[in-house]
Amino acid sequence: MGREQVARVTEIIAESPVGFKEAINVGFTRASKTLRGITGLRVVEQRVSVKDDKIDTYRVRMEVIFILDE
Amino acid sequence: MGREQVARVTEIIAESPVGFKEAINVGFTRASKTLRGITGLRVVEQRVSVKDDKIDTYRVRMEVIFILDE
Amino acid sequence: MGREQVARVTEIIAESPVGFKEAINVGFTRASKTLRGITGLRVVEQRVSVKDDKIDTYRVRMEVIFILDE
Amino acid sequence: MGREQVARVTEIIAESPVGFKEAINVGFTRASKTLRGITGLRVVEQRVSVKDDKIDTYRVRMEVIFILDE
Amino acid sequence: MGREQVARVTEIIAESPVGFKEAINVGFTRASKTLRGITGLRVVEQRVSVKDDKIDTYRVRMEVIFILDE
Amino acid sequence: MGREQVARVTEIIAESPVGFKEAINVGFTRASKTLRGITGLRVVEQRVSVKDDKIDTYRVRMEVIFILDE
Amino acid sequence: MGREQVARVTEIIAESPVGFKEAINVGFTRASKTLRGITGLRVVEQRVSVKDDKIDTYRVRMEVIFILDE
Amino acid sequence: MGREQVARVTEIIAESPVGFKEAINVGFTRASKTLRGITGLRVVEQRVSVKDDKIDTYRVRMEVIFILDE
Amino acid sequence: MGREQVARVTEIIAESPVGFKEAINVGFTRASKTLRGITGLRVVEQRVSVKDDKIDTYRVRMEVIFILDE
Amino acid sequence: MGREQVARVTEIIAESPVGFKEAINVGFTRASKTLRGITGLRVVEQRVSVKDDKIDTYRVRMEVIFILDE
Amino acid sequence: MGREQVARVTEIIAESPVGFKEAINVGFTRASKTLRGITGLRVVEQRVSVKDDKIDTYRVRMEVIFILDE
Amino acid sequence: MGREQVARVTEIIAESPVGFKEAINVGFTRASKTLRGITGLRVVEQRVSVKDDKIDTYRVRMEVIFILDE
Repeated sequence: MGREQVARVTEIIAESPVGFKEAINVGFTRASKTLRGITGLRVVEQRVSVKDDKIDTYRVRMEVIFILDE
Repeated sequence: MGREQVARVTEIIAESPVGFKEAINVGFTRASKTLRGITGLRVVEQRVSVKDDKIDTYRVRMEVIFILDE
Repeated sequence: MGREQVARVTEIIAESPVGFKEAINVGFTRASKTLRGITGLRVVEQRVSVKDDKIDTYRVRMEVIFILDE
Repeated sequence: MGREQVARVTEIIAESPVGFKEAINVGFTRASKTLRGITGLRVVEQRVSVKDDKIDTYRVRMEVIFILDE
Repeated sequence: MGREQVARVTEIIAESPVGFKEAINVGFTRASKTLRGITGLRVVEQRVSVKDDKIDTYRVRMEVIFILDE
Repeated sequence: MGREQVARVTEIIAESPVGFKEAINVGFTRASKTLRGITGLRVVEQRVSVKDDKIDTYRVRMEVIFILDE
Repeated sequence: MGREQVARVTEIIAESPVGFKEAINVGFTRASKTLRGITGLRVVEQRVSVKDDKIDTYRVRMEVIFILDE
Repeated sequence: MGREQVARVTEIIAESPVGFKEAINVGFTRASKTLRGITGLRVVEQRVSVKDDKIDTYRVRMEVIFILDE
Repeated sequence: MGREQVARVTEIIAESPVGFKEAINVGFTRASKTLRGITGLRVVEQRVSVKDDKIDTYRVRMEVIFILDE
Repeated sequence: MGREQVARVTEIIAESPVGFKEAINVGFTRASKTLRGITGLRVVEQRVSVKDDKIDTYRVRMEVIFILDE
Repeated sequence: MGREQVARVTEIIAESPVGFKEAINVGFTRASKTLRGITGLRVVEQRVSVKDDKIDTYRVRMEVIFILDE
Repeated sequence: MGREQVARVTEIIAESPVGFKEAINVGFTRASKTLRGITGLRVVEQRVSVKDDKIDTYRVRMEVIFILDE
């Protein structure tokens, strides 16, 4: 049988100059510094910002799901 | 006349092996431990997880709205 | 070149008896008390509550985006 | 062969202190007092309101579909 | 300069055994019996119902917009 | 404990040559003529119409929520 | 490390005269007859159908997720 | 009283060079070859494809709902 | 192997007094006057406008997709 | 009877340091420089950007609808 | 002139420990084992699951579109 | 204080046989040929097209945002 459990969903926007996959990593790494029990991430939006006519930053908005202690 | 007030909206995912109504209770009870001034919840999503060919857990994703102190 | 950076998105509901623009200000002012590095707000929903047959409160649900320290 | 028929869709928000299923019943019972030919309801949103740190009311927003007389 | 005016939006579901265009007509004709000042319709959904393995009815859910008298 | 109650949600589109806030007022004032027990409004859409190359009308589509008598 | 795996998502609409929870069970039981490896269900829509002025059927549209064999 | 019943929802994209109504027919006819107990179709999307500067094909994406045998 | 190619998506609203299919044609014909390489259209919204209590115009909002020259 | 007519929908994001209403005006004024036959605007999104802990800019994303010459 | 043709849309969730692009490949490869005439895939959702504080699996939910034989 | 500024949002669909990241680049490069002042891109949809049972093209639909000259 399942058990009672509660998780929280928070949203972050992470940036990397390399790519979306790296941006997800940047976000996950930063989130892991302050949140325990992360179980997953969900991509909400993917943007690219441009400076001086060049792709400058890959930006991923994502949900971070983590289990709340009892 | 109304007054100035600010509330926060946070999202949790609560699980119970019994049903959705119980999962909402599990979530509310846990949220009440850490949040004062909860005014309401809004159901965002209802899922069921299955293990060994049996319904194992009822999972409700919900918004929790609580008033911020001044 | 862009750099690695992470921002958080949180949601508040701010009320003012005057108007939506004032409600946004109420929300921003309150958020600034506890959050550093706010870069922007996004309006999610605009409601009006009515009491004794008169418009009583303007309520704006908005996202608050703020940069997380390293 | 099908026939020509027109139904109307109206929206209500029904509340019950007991649960969502009861709230649907409260809504259906009230709608039946004024509307003939109801064929169905569609749940649009489920909220819970909290007072004095306790779940106080289950609120269901629903569409009511009823056949219009010729 | 524009003037102050208020219109109402109501939703109906109209059926015809012939096609969607005819179903819209059925709906408009029925609505015109009870509503004055209709300015437009907006298609919300198009369904087909099947009986005895044959397309039986074309069903259009639509918004009806009509001007409210002062 | 909460009590059983039912509210109705209807939609109007109100126009004003002055601004969105005024259009909301126009809509609320007109709705109050025919509906008792209005508890709130929710903005659904904001449009501007243009005539002779000038902004002519501010149009707000909004939900009106009002309590149904027993 | 995670492994390579593929699941399928199919949609069913299950009905029960008793309630939504029972309708989910009816759907799950029927799906389990033909599908192995079901991991979860996600509620998509909840409707009630009415006959002879009484609530007759609770209808839940849900996704069924099941693991595909290699 | 209602009874227990389960239907399945599958999606097809049907094309016809004549029009959307014909494309729905093409889809329904093909689905009827392999599916028993079809109760209805729901239009999800309507596209037109163009070749050599002429409208070439009307394409309708639709849900097909059919009753599952016990 | 595929090749590198870029298409543009633009949106038009076309009207015809006859029907939606004709409105799509009106839109496509007009778009073809100024755009080369149109590959397809996608229906976004279907409205009807009413004048003097009669259906006056069928209005289709659609995306027009066309290939950009190198 | 209606006539054949085609309008185009384009999207702009206009900024003003004063407010949303002013931002709409900035957008409309700029659009009117290059587009003839504008019939309306539709607000898509409202954002505020913050600099040095102060609300710096009101940003409105809006659709601009204008009639295409024959 | 176009021809009559029907395609089916099915949904899968594919996982890979390497990345989203690889997960799409895993899904496509598995789908190709059972489905002929696949014409395309559409990404619906991208998730990452985390185990022992490390990104463990990249999960892509996608539509698979394939042509049905006559 | 912010200043008055207007940007335009246009949509393109870019294809590459290599991957989504490359398709974004293809789109950005092509857009840069005709548009000055591009500030960013937003991914709207990601599709893959299949030919001869192999993934043939990665297709990204994206918004391109660019500043309009005064």
